Amino acid sequence: MTSTDAPAEAPRARVERAALELFTSRGFDAVPAEEVADAAGISRRTFFRYYPAKADAVWGDFAAHVARLDGLLRAAGPDRPVLATICAAYAEVNDYGEADLPVLRQRMRLILTEPALQAHSQLRYAEIDRVVAAHVARSSGDDPSGLLPRLVAASTRAAATTAFAAWLADDRSDLGRQLHRAFDELAAGFPSLRS
Amino acid sequence: MTSTDAPAEAPRARVERAALELFTSRGFDAVPAEEVADAAGISRRTFFRYYPAKADAVWGDFAAHVARLDGLLRAAGPDRPVLATICAAYAEVNDYGEADLPVLRQRMRLILTEPALQAHSQLRYAEIDRVVAAHVARSSGDDPSGLLPRLVAASTRAAATTAFAAWLADDRSDLGRQLHRAFDELAAGFPSLRS
Repeated sequence: MTSTDAPAEAPRARVERAALELFTSRGFDAVPAEEVADAAGISRRTFFRYYPAKADAVWGDFAAHVARLDGLLRAAGPDRPVLATICAAYAEVNDYGEADLPVLRQRMRLILTEPALQAHSQLRYAEIDRVVAAHVARSSGDDPSGLLPRLVAASTRAAATTAFAAWLADDRSDLGRQLHRAFDELAAGFPSLRS
Repeated sequence: MTSTDAPAEAPRARVERAALELFTSRGFDAVPAEEVADAAGISRRTFFRYYPAKADAVWGDFAAHVARLDGLLRAAGPDRPVLATICAAYAEVNDYGEADLPVLRQRMRLILTEPALQAHSQLRYAEIDRVVAAHVARSSGDDPSGLLPRLVAASTRAAATTAFAAWLADDRSDLGRQLHRAFDELAAGFPSLRS
């Protein structure tokens, strides 16, 4: 590791910021990993040590994100309703400070709209789904590959993704509120449709 | 159009069967469109007239599938609960005869597991979501791009996809039952998690 400058910013954060800027302005396919590495002042080799694939720079430290979600689910008391636990954990891992929102907006816009990232995104989503389905299976006694664990994982993720899309579509909206509203609708069988 | 043989089978069905067989046995990326065309006894040009992209041969006549879903949603009486209408329409367009199940299995296994198809699949899913969100918007008065229409579209599709995955994972299971169970759980806020 040869981090020499910008001591205020960790090298990975610097690479991700450069990647998001370049991919947003010129398109994910048009910017080679080498150029991101250059812009962040690291070598190509260091880039690929941080990020096995170019797409990983868009997702950032997603393994930590998944581990945090898993930790919150495992720490939840067994008496708490399963869906409420999952929604609270999702909301907590996606609770960003005001200062992080511009970068988050770039990141999520790329993830949700860039066609070249879609195959990679399915792998990342599958990691989230695995952790959520495992939590449902621990609570319900079902096999994690059964319909109910899969369904809860897929639909809570759909709710989170929808909240992000609604937030991106409306600059003035609040991400936390969109997430809570989506989870509340999901958990109650979409009460707004009945009113 | 130069359909000369196999009068019992429409050319498109023949191409799709050849495509699914070849992609399943050797992998989507390893089989060029030309080889599918050859196997189905049509020219490369005819293949690309039927299917603008190789991936479209996996999905088959998906525009007709979306149009049928849209028609069922539009035909539903305004007094019927929105979610029940959507689930019934989804179940109806996915109600396959016993004879069609082997091909459907190949098709869905490719769609749900082949990485090279994922980017294309997101476009197809977006067509479904647009039709479902429009139905919710007509009923609720929301903007189709608002949180609720998006959420209902994304989570009913997640339920359908989950039902297909659970069906693929268990050879003896019944697709219709998996779909109904997934939609029933979703519509009632996952009652099985509370029992």
